[in-house]
Amino acid sequence: MNQQLSIQTTGQGLREITREVDSVVERAGVSDGLCTIMVRHTSASLTIQENADPSAGRDLENWINRLVVENDPLYTHTHEGPDDMPSHIKAVLTATTLSIPIANGQLALGRWQGIYLWEHRQRGSERQIAVHVGS
Amino acid sequence: MNQQLSIQTTGQGLREITREVDSVVERAGVSDGLCTIMVRHTSASLTIQENADPSAGRDLENWINRLVVENDPLYTHTHEGPDDMPSHIKAVLTATTLSIPIANGQLALGRWQGIYLWEHRQRGSERQIAVHVGS
Amino acid sequence: MNQQLSIQTTGQGLREITREVDSVVERAGVSDGLCTIMVRHTSASLTIQENADPSAGRDLENWINRLVVENDPLYTHTHEGPDDMPSHIKAVLTATTLSIPIANGQLALGRWQGIYLWEHRQRGSERQIAVHVGS
Repeated sequence: MNQQLSIQTTGQGLREITREVDSVVERAGVSDGLCTIMVRHTSASLTIQENADPSAGRDLENWINRLVVENDPLYTHTHEGPDDMPSHIKAVLTATTLSIPIANGQLALGRWQGIYLWEHRQRGSERQIAVHVGS
Repeated sequence: MNQQLSIQTTGQGLREITREVDSVVERAGVSDGLCTIMVRHTSASLTIQENADPSAGRDLENWINRLVVENDPLYTHTHEGPDDMPSHIKAVLTATTLSIPIANGQLALGRWQGIYLWEHRQRGSERQIAVHVGS
Repeated sequence: MNQQLSIQTTGQGLREITREVDSVVERAGVSDGLCTIMVRHTSASLTIQENADPSAGRDLENWINRLVVENDPLYTHTHEGPDDMPSHIKAVLTATTLSIPIANGQLALGRWQGIYLWEHRQRGSERQIAVHVGS
């Protein structure tokens, strides 16, 4: 079973999408299976991270922005702006696809885990995520 | 088919779990299929790495510890100790889920590949890994 | 359905394999499903990246080569040459497995997304990629 999620982002940072993915799994009605999500863009990515304390997400964002800087003289791929190439690098260092087991009809996430869409462009946009639920 | 593995870690570093995952695949009795594993924590991760020479794993550990340092003044998420935020960052840079094809009843790993649970906290603990085997 | 792809690389860098993976999906004849690929080596990896402008791939390569240098005094795992340990680190920071939903018989990649095999050794070789297509 396939479905596409459209998620609006409002700028750089982590946006939790656990609830949206949960809804697809619920509708699929699979008791034991596998849920795979893929972000259909190369300037945004996916991650599973702590959902208890937002400070973890902010530190992640600051840390990766220090590692992957804008206006690096190394970049030649710059025509879409200073956040273009950093977005691709961050996407490569994190995840484009995630596969999450489904047990007893629910995503088998740990207690403190949430699924996040990570927007890497300064300006948010509507991001598409392909979701597949199989047995 | 779903199963959960409990793996005891004893501190930072790579702990091979190929044998444990193999056992689940064997019990599932699937000839051609897919094995997906997900670590149910945000301060440990998964990786597929060389299993021939332990020096590769030690170098990996040392390299990532130099990239993601403790007591970085950037961190605000520090209430669980100096290894808290570095653990989350390392988890994001490596993998939380892995999907491995099964061919002829066996994980289709390359000759030198092993599956590893990567503990990022100074103190080890019992880590849970959700395993799904499908066709 | 399982198949193995053999891809010849000619040195460090990204080699697009979207067409080769597409062919496997087509042959599988699955309308809605999941395609999983795994590189069976620890010195090469996989990534989904922009396929429109080759400058993005070159910048990625240069950026990661600056982050993960050869002849780092930290390395002890050096018997296969100066590109041995950097290859393992780059593989760990990127992806060994990718799972891509199939919708309407086609990989549900975004418009600008391509699948890449990333060779991390100076000298290319024949790389094996396990492909699984399921429903």
